[in-house]
Amino acid sequence: MRVLSGTQPSGRLHIGNYFGAIRQYIRLQDDGNECFYFIPNYHALTSMTDSAELERITRHVATAYLALGADPDRSVLFCQSDVPEVTELCWILNCVCPVSLMDKATSYKDKVARGLPASVGLFDYPVLQAADILIYDSNLVPVGADQKQHIEIARDLAGKFNRRAGDDVLVLPEPYIVPEVAVVPGIDGQKMSKSYDNTLEIFATDKQTTKTCARIVTDSTPLDEPKDPEACNVFALLKLFADDDEIDAIAAQYRAGGFGYGQAKKRLAELMNAFFADARAKYAELDKHPDTVRDILADGGRKARRVAQDTMHRVRAACGILRHEP
Amino acid sequence: MRVLSGTQPSGRLHIGNYFGAIRQYIRLQDDGNECFYFIPNYHALTSMTDSAELERITRHVATAYLALGADPDRSVLFCQSDVPEVTELCWILNCVCPVSLMDKATSYKDKVARGLPASVGLFDYPVLQAADILIYDSNLVPVGADQKQHIEIARDLAGKFNRRAGDDVLVLPEPYIVPEVAVVPGIDGQKMSKSYDNTLEIFATDKQTTKTCARIVTDSTPLDEPKDPEACNVFALLKLFADDDEIDAIAAQYRAGGFGYGQAKKRLAELMNAFFADARAKYAELDKHPDTVRDILADGGRKARRVAQDTMHRVRAACGILRHEP
Repeated sequence: MRVLSGTQPSGRLHIGNYFGAIRQYIRLQDDGNECFYFIPNYHALTSMTDSAELERITRHVATAYLALGADPDRSVLFCQSDVPEVTELCWILNCVCPVSLMDKATSYKDKVARGLPASVGLFDYPVLQAADILIYDSNLVPVGADQKQHIEIARDLAGKFNRRAGDDVLVLPEPYIVPEVAVVPGIDGQKMSKSYDNTLEIFATDKQTTKTCARIVTDSTPLDEPKDPEACNVFALLKLFADDDEIDAIAAQYRAGGFGYGQAKKRLAELMNAFFADARAKYAELDKHPDTVRDILADGGRKARRVAQDTMHRVRAACGILRHEP
Repeated sequence: MRVLSGTQPSGRLHIGNYFGAIRQYIRLQDDGNECFYFIPNYHALTSMTDSAELERITRHVATAYLALGADPDRSVLFCQSDVPEVTELCWILNCVCPVSLMDKATSYKDKVARGLPASVGLFDYPVLQAADILIYDSNLVPVGADQKQHIEIARDLAGKFNRRAGDDVLVLPEPYIVPEVAVVPGIDGQKMSKSYDNTLEIFATDKQTTKTCARIVTDSTPLDEPKDPEACNVFALLKLFADDDEIDAIAAQYRAGGFGYGQAKKRLAELMNAFFADARAKYAELDKHPDTVRDILADGGRKARRVAQDTMHRVRAACGILRHEP
């Protein structure tokens, strides 16, 4: 199966990105699927206005994917902007997309409510997303349960285009609802998100991680008293890293009293640092060789573009768009 | 000055297209400007759903431009779709374009009121138009007085992009309000328009032209009675083709009585056939050699694309969009 997945660069990656998405993306590769991992930097323009920051974060996400297990020999890792054909398909899909369909898309309203500028790009975001999916003839698109609408829009637009063309030009993708998505709280207890500034970064140093863990918000139950592990952010985060036996043991210590949040935070930092030790070492190594990452992205872009150009060849012929040069 | 102009292919060209736009476009070339003439086939997708018809009309418009005096040695004649970078710039401009600016654009509402499907493409139409203008660093864009808003939107978006980039990346175009735009009535007296099916086609045969002229709607004043030339569609059309002396003479005949509408229609057909005789001969010749037209479009596309790629190089750098391949 061809699987497409992307992570919009909005900041340095955190463990919410990892446990909520990237881990599952890498598993799909390891399960033998043909994975296309892309970095949606065109989409990022809807929320990022600092060009240097966008470049930096684009490279960061690419390096992070490689460090976390994306294998360029088996998967295609690339920047969205290395396949500009996707904006051409976006325009063509715009022409079969009723405004009423976008009015129903919930992400636009949510994002505007969260303070993003109400731009035409933000309004058109789901159509570019559909173009990303459809241009690679993707079969499966891993999404969280709350993102199923994105795939429905892509299927809807592919169907409309195919009906207009009178032919099955575009492949209808299936959503792959990612199993075992852990809910990852931020250090303030809200959902972990760059925009809440409450993240634990994957590629922080051990020391930074320990310091950030120390800042996790807890209640003020004194050290001696029993504590409810299920009401504690630190415990929720520990569950991501500790094995079942240790989780049970720590829960018992919480309930018994005499076990402080400080101890739990320290253990969390140890486990997290151990968990990401290999990835961090690989990231540091890649970071010393930016040309390697650049070459991998260039190669991935070429591979992805070949697939996209085949699709666009069919798409243009189906809608009467002439092209005099290849 | 670099001048950009385009004629959306929606049907075979008629004299409304000629006297309202194309004649002035050709004059700008003959006045020594560097003219980019393009055929906006991406825009045409907002109204045309028949792919074979879109291909046919795209070629028709290209051939017509050449027959009417566009000179490929002095001007760049090309298909919009041979410069797909324009859809990339459209996306980038979407991200600086407030939805409220598009809500104010009058063309969307007008077109929906006229029955076109309310697609995202139609909503986004002015942004793609702005991308067309800005990607070629156009200085002047000839428009009718009622289309000034298009240029204002392009200027507005260029300004927003430049402010965000902190640099004058995009050239702000000036509108060139086309002088002497004749109001061209259709054969039913409404504005001549493909959608009203009331056109006099430029590249009809002499015989077809004579037949269509005979169908021009007039009132039923009997032959002998005096007629008001200024209230007559035939007279309005005659003014486009006859010289001043003949116009005065015909007006006098109208007012004197004894001069029938049939005579006026016959004279109109004669004059129109003579006026377009050279262009029709050239069109017929080009039509026999589709490869010539194709080569001219391919060459124009290459030239236009080089300019567009330079612009996109600046644009991507200014907004932090990485590109690993040229």
